[in-house]
Amino acid sequence: MGFVSVLSFVHQLLAQRVQPGDAVIDATLGTGVDALYLAKLVGRRGRVYGFDIQPEALDRSRQRLEKELPAEAAAAVELHLRSHAEMEAAVPPDRHGQVAAVTFNLGYLPGAESAVITQQASTLAALEASLRLLRRGGIVSIVLYTGHEGGSEEAAAVEAWASELPLAAYQVLRYQFANGNRTAPYLLAVEKR
Amino acid sequence: MGFVSVLSFVHQLLAQRVQPGDAVIDATLGTGVDALYLAKLVGRRGRVYGFDIQPEALDRSRQRLEKELPAEAAAAVELHLRSHAEMEAAVPPDRHGQVAAVTFNLGYLPGAESAVITQQASTLAALEASLRLLRRGGIVSIVLYTGHEGGSEEAAAVEAWASELPLAAYQVLRYQFANGNRTAPYLLAVEKR
Repeated sequence: MGFVSVLSFVHQLLAQRVQPGDAVIDATLGTGVDALYLAKLVGRRGRVYGFDIQPEALDRSRQRLEKELPAEAAAAVELHLRSHAEMEAAVPPDRHGQVAAVTFNLGYLPGAESAVITQQASTLAALEASLRLLRRGGIVSIVLYTGHEGGSEEAAAVEAWASELPLAAYQVLRYQFANGNRTAPYLLAVEKR
Repeated sequence: MGFVSVLSFVHQLLAQRVQPGDAVIDATLGTGVDALYLAKLVGRRGRVYGFDIQPEALDRSRQRLEKELPAEAAAAVELHLRSHAEMEAAVPPDRHGQVAAVTFNLGYLPGAESAVITQQASTLAALEASLRLLRRGGIVSIVLYTGHEGGSEEAAAVEAWASELPLAAYQVLRYQFANGNRTAPYLLAVEKR
């Protein structure tokens, strides 16, 4: 039957923790896969805050959301052309400490012409911001790619950051395929206790 | 809510793959926790082959099984005082290639007086035997402990072995808590394709 894929495992973790009406964040919109999944979980009374620094990512995400969702559910998604490192400025203050989930897919936008990749400094700043925004029981999912240039350095920095999170406040889980393709994407998930 | 523990995650993987009537193996009986769980999954028509080289482990496993199971279900469990490296000699030939699951908990018997630990050479031989016994879609679960003397060397040897398994024939999954306690037990699971 095969083990559950990294993407499916992330979506299982989200489905177990995100309720209708919740506020959630897609920190790296890309083509909008996670934003769409989150929008379905939170519904029209919820809110998805999506971030990407590439206009193409916002376009592709908007197209996906409008195609796959009823208009009122798509309206619950805010797309921000802005670095995820600035997410706290974009999420209303009354949602701080209330966010149920933040998703990250590090690396680059699949199929994009430009070679824009996530950068270690802004990634770490965004991860720190995510933990501040999260509610207890909320999770940050981080899918790491090491196949592109700079990818393994970024992954190492995120690994070091995650491994130092205090166990009293956070639990970090690794879900990773461990044979064959050495650059297969893998997951670090952080739950706030 | 917390992430699912390593033990619970192993039991989920087993429950998804083991059916009543199946043949399964507990390669490291210990106190019989996995043998009991496997016995419940395979039922009285199935067969659990349990191995340990310590008489105390067989005693504690037998006590647990007799206490927790109806007599006919307990009778479906064979306890072998024998190295798991010899499991192919103990499992009937008509079951070879038909085994649904093999569980390993490496390290030492909790609470035992003697300091018997699993050894790298016999562990690797037992893992190889497990893959030969397994049916397609069957899994080998390996819980690794690095806290005791020799534990991290054994884990490194198992990691090296697992990472080299060909992706065309096997899929290896790592499930691991990644902050705080650096010697927390973690899982490598191997599924035969």
